[in-house]
Amino acid sequence: MIVVTEKKLTAIYTGIAQALGATQEEADIFARCHVRADLRGMYTQGAAIIPYTVGLTEKNIARFGVPFKILRDEAGMCLVDAGFGVGVVVGTRAMELAMEKARKAGTGCVWVQHGGDFNMTANPVLQAVEQDMVGIVMRNEGPRVAPWGGRDPFFYTNPIAVGVPTGKEPPIIIDMAAGSFSVGQVVMAARDNRLLPSAHLVTSEGVYTDDATKIVINPALRESKFNGGIVTLGHKGLIWALIVELFSGLLPGVNTSNKNNYDPTGEQPLNDGAFYMAIDVSKLQPVTEFKIAADEFSRALSSVRPAEGFDRVVVPGEGEAAREAQRRKEGIPIRDEDWQGVLDVAARYKVEANSTN
Amino acid sequence: MIVVTEKKLTAIYTGIAQALGATQEEADIFARCHVRADLRGMYTQGAAIIPYTVGLTEKNIARFGVPFKILRDEAGMCLVDAGFGVGVVVGTRAMELAMEKARKAGTGCVWVQHGGDFNMTANPVLQAVEQDMVGIVMRNEGPRVAPWGGRDPFFYTNPIAVGVPTGKEPPIIIDMAAGSFSVGQVVMAARDNRLLPSAHLVTSEGVYTDDATKIVINPALRESKFNGGIVTLGHKGLIWALIVELFSGLLPGVNTSNKNNYDPTGEQPLNDGAFYMAIDVSKLQPVTEFKIAADEFSRALSSVRPAEGFDRVVVPGEGEAAREAQRRKEGIPIRDEDWQGVLDVAARYKVEANSTN
Repeated sequence: MIVVTEKKLTAIYTGIAQALGATQEEADIFARCHVRADLRGMYTQGAAIIPYTVGLTEKNIARFGVPFKILRDEAGMCLVDAGFGVGVVVGTRAMELAMEKARKAGTGCVWVQHGGDFNMTANPVLQAVEQDMVGIVMRNEGPRVAPWGGRDPFFYTNPIAVGVPTGKEPPIIIDMAAGSFSVGQVVMAARDNRLLPSAHLVTSEGVYTDDATKIVINPALRESKFNGGIVTLGHKGLIWALIVELFSGLLPGVNTSNKNNYDPTGEQPLNDGAFYMAIDVSKLQPVTEFKIAADEFSRALSSVRPAEGFDRVVVPGEGEAAREAQRRKEGIPIRDEDWQGVLDVAARYKVEANSTN
Repeated sequence: MIVVTEKKLTAIYTGIAQALGATQEEADIFARCHVRADLRGMYTQGAAIIPYTVGLTEKNIARFGVPFKILRDEAGMCLVDAGFGVGVVVGTRAMELAMEKARKAGTGCVWVQHGGDFNMTANPVLQAVEQDMVGIVMRNEGPRVAPWGGRDPFFYTNPIAVGVPTGKEPPIIIDMAAGSFSVGQVVMAARDNRLLPSAHLVTSEGVYTDDATKIVINPALRESKFNGGIVTLGHKGLIWALIVELFSGLLPGVNTSNKNNYDPTGEQPLNDGAFYMAIDVSKLQPVTEFKIAADEFSRALSSVRPAEGFDRVVVPGEGEAAREAQRRKEGIPIRDEDWQGVLDVAARYKVEANSTN
């Protein structure tokens, strides 16, 4: 484990993005989004994903310097083609656009074609929260998750994030996968030979298991293919995955995850989609009143008396906010193998990574 | 069990609403929504709920003849006070308003204060689907569901419904509670002395149980109070309940469920809220193309090979659509005690209920 300052990490990520051809604006977004994942302890979306994301741009599956093409435009919504832009850049721009709409129409919905993986799903909703808006995002990709009752991967893990502005309490930040586990959790469980906490995996023979080695083909590969899939959390989990597929696949007119492949190439990137929504709270009530109510709600939720086996009820986002504040002061711990991955990329692109500040 | 025609049931429900002071439009909505629940097999929202709903109007907790008061109005959204209108009437009008907005702005969001229980959550989204729109609804009420890790009721069961138009396949209609069970399921399990399929109830001592008699105070009462609560389906279930609370409580500026009581009175009805959204599919892509894609998606989902212990994957709404088609032809079977409840109300209001057609 190494500890790196936010400033140093930002400089390295910015340098990498610039070396890959990003504009200054794009490089800033790239660095900010990945550093924020490291700050909040979502390391699989920060340092650990840098080599993978860089690989996508090298293979031309994700591209810097591509502007949005507006396909449909209405007062409350629009549909854009992101042209296989780099995910975090697309995500930031799409939420900006949703907020622009919301400032005029009260709510803004942006459907995105070909926007790729925006990594930490919380990033665009934090962006909305910092403008006193409620933010929502969803996206699809390739088939990873079997529907309840089925054995074949059909949905992507279909992440959803929702952000709620608060006053004194940490913002409520929901960041979850509609599958029972994330792809990263499953691959790492296989790599470490750990059983998962529940049998929410299914083999291609249709057998439920908690043993990730039975489905992960190459545990050394972060995005390893599966032989079988993750399973949704019951029929309700199927429903959540379906809602994300509706918003990310059917409505923007791209593929639903079941129609995408595992293996995108520069010639055939994924025909994926995403959804962004911003709600301008001030159009419904004074923002200060909303924040007081959100604070009260958050405190009341964490004050619910615990059930057997629990210490307390956890409000989504509170742990990440505490971690972020601490790491801004004390530096960001990064696992050795993840740091090595960043250093390798930095060396390849001649980005200074060993300065002391 | 008795079998009643759609026509006869419609006449009885219409007559009851009229006797309670409904306008013709309101009586038509009242009858249509409750009959549709009976047709789709959601009997706890049809015949079985009639005496309860009538009781609400008698106690002045739910009121016919109250127009919407528009509190905020923007291109893509509005906020209305429904003035404790009868739930199904409020729900129908709110979705109509959301669709009006969507026809102009692409999407329409309507936040409703004091709209009460709109019964079968699928009703307003079916209304949107029949206009080639995607429809979404959510609502809150009083505390019934304990958050994951907690023992005190905090959320309402917080229903969500989503409707997706299709072409040849039945529309995809999601209609689910964010809690592990509905209030009706729990009360009836206690009444029938049946254990629930999982231990997603918690007593006021914090002990998890599958025995509804340990928390239901009066099993004879459909809306009996609980001593303890239903539990969310894990932390993900807590998140879904929280999202509904955000949209139904915080954003419209009413109480979150934890701040409401069980026992509304005519003087103090619940300070509850709801959210309605309509998305005009034609603003994103040609409706025919969307429907072809939705059909393909639905067929692909139901074609996923089954896992061990399952016959097939179920697409939400397919069972209800089949039941509706059959019952329109063959009549609607109604349980004796539910029919008796309807007859009692009809007799009290001198509504003819024993004609033969």
